[in-house]
Amino acid sequence: MVTSSLTSGLGAGVSALHKQIKNNQQDKLSLAVPSIHSYTQTHSFSLEVKLKMVVKVYGPVYASPKRVMVCLFEKEIEFETVPVNLLTGENRRPEYLKLQPFGSLPVIQDGDYTLFESRAIIRYYAKKYKSQGTDLLGKTIEEQGLVEQWLEVEAHNFNPPANNLVLHIMFSPSFGITRDENLIKESEEKLAKVLDVYEDRLSKSKYLAGDFVSLADLSHLPFLNYLVGPIGKEYLIKERKHVSAWYDEISSRPSWKRCLEYGFPFEFK
Amino acid sequence: MVTSSLTSGLGAGVSALHKQIKNNQQDKLSLAVPSIHSYTQTHSFSLEVKLKMVVKVYGPVYASPKRVMVCLFEKEIEFETVPVNLLTGENRRPEYLKLQPFGSLPVIQDGDYTLFESRAIIRYYAKKYKSQGTDLLGKTIEEQGLVEQWLEVEAHNFNPPANNLVLHIMFSPSFGITRDENLIKESEEKLAKVLDVYEDRLSKSKYLAGDFVSLADLSHLPFLNYLVGPIGKEYLIKERKHVSAWYDEISSRPSWKRCLEYGFPFEFK
Repeated sequence: MVTSSLTSGLGAGVSALHKQIKNNQQDKLSLAVPSIHSYTQTHSFSLEVKLKMVVKVYGPVYASPKRVMVCLFEKEIEFETVPVNLLTGENRRPEYLKLQPFGSLPVIQDGDYTLFESRAIIRYYAKKYKSQGTDLLGKTIEEQGLVEQWLEVEAHNFNPPANNLVLHIMFSPSFGITRDENLIKESEEKLAKVLDVYEDRLSKSKYLAGDFVSLADLSHLPFLNYLVGPIGKEYLIKERKHVSAWYDEISSRPSWKRCLEYGFPFEFK
Repeated sequence: MVTSSLTSGLGAGVSALHKQIKNNQQDKLSLAVPSIHSYTQTHSFSLEVKLKMVVKVYGPVYASPKRVMVCLFEKEIEFETVPVNLLTGENRRPEYLKLQPFGSLPVIQDGDYTLFESRAIIRYYAKKYKSQGTDLLGKTIEEQGLVEQWLEVEAHNFNPPANNLVLHIMFSPSFGITRDENLIKESEEKLAKVLDVYEDRLSKSKYLAGDFVSLADLSHLPFLNYLVGPIGKEYLIKERKHVSAWYDEISSRPSWKRCLEYGFPFEFK
């Protein structure tokens, strides 16, 4: 299989085929090449070149792109990754800003289609491939509404204090942020209250939106991983019985373990 | 028509019917009452009582519930409103926290179904009634992906600085927040950069996700309304040709004008 990023070396014929299949990433085309003169004048042969457009995910070592990757693994969608180094400002370069005008991670490219904002990307793929891999949306419209609700809670209640803790405890020297002890304390208190609500919710259903795993659960994994790991706030999870069981369940999924193989901005054990 | 909130006065018979139709808000039932003795002993008559479950939206004077209401108007979904006063802490009362455990606005009740987080609610209704009223989701999955993307941009790029401006310029005395001039300056600068990206985007398509109005556009209206009105930052919109035309278009929709009739936390002209 020759993936899309390698096709440029195969000349104009392949490039034309590449264009033909741009809008259908599932296609596999065979290209018959009757003879290659530089190789042999006496034998013609056929060369099968399978072209497959795979999804490109930018910035795989960071947290938000991992939110996308864990869902792509669950949906059994093949992807390749493109490194982006925030420390050297690669996300502020003009070619990156053409893909993501705010200079944030992640962005995906899927043939001609470009999409940014991690929670938009995961909704897009969960819907596009609803019946492939794990269904992450819920069966009924009412279940889907609850998935949306808890995905929004992750974005607006869980993520802001978790993000403050990660930035100020782990990344402040690297990103030139002054470590703010008051903000750390305040964020920890806020997060504890949020997790109290989660504890109550998870005492009633195995996952946030009901008894099925969904985008809403998986979306928490990147920052939960920081909390229990390098920033030393594991107690926030472990002291809450149902939150702890939920975290153990979702973080032991093969999809998340495969994400961990892509490393972290500054490696930690 | 007798709406659900009025049925309690109609006695046990209606209450039983009320229960029967809880799961189907579209139903209209006729209740035959053979005679009402206190009215007349000599004439029996039939009284037609139409019961319809309508959506209840909590806190209509505030910004986030208006995000829901503008979409309900576009989708031609009937609703009633329930006042919630944040200044007197009605959102911290146990009965409210049963509906919305974080004490935030809005929350909706639709028969037995309760849903919170404004952007989850609007996605739910846009999907549930896709072919009723204005289609706010986009036709193809790719269009829908772009709606999700710009709805996320509204939530994560536009809203945080806009919210800071509104809180610190307009509401700081009422909510006991110390007005932070540095934060106001920083938020104004951030918002200007975000609107520069919008200006570029809106020079290429009439609306954010393409040439069709969507959840992504309407979701901006409550805070755009504060910016051009009481907090005096109209110039951020008016100095950008395409953003200004977009704002004029979406804010003149009848759906938004009907929202304005519900008033604001502290009335302004």
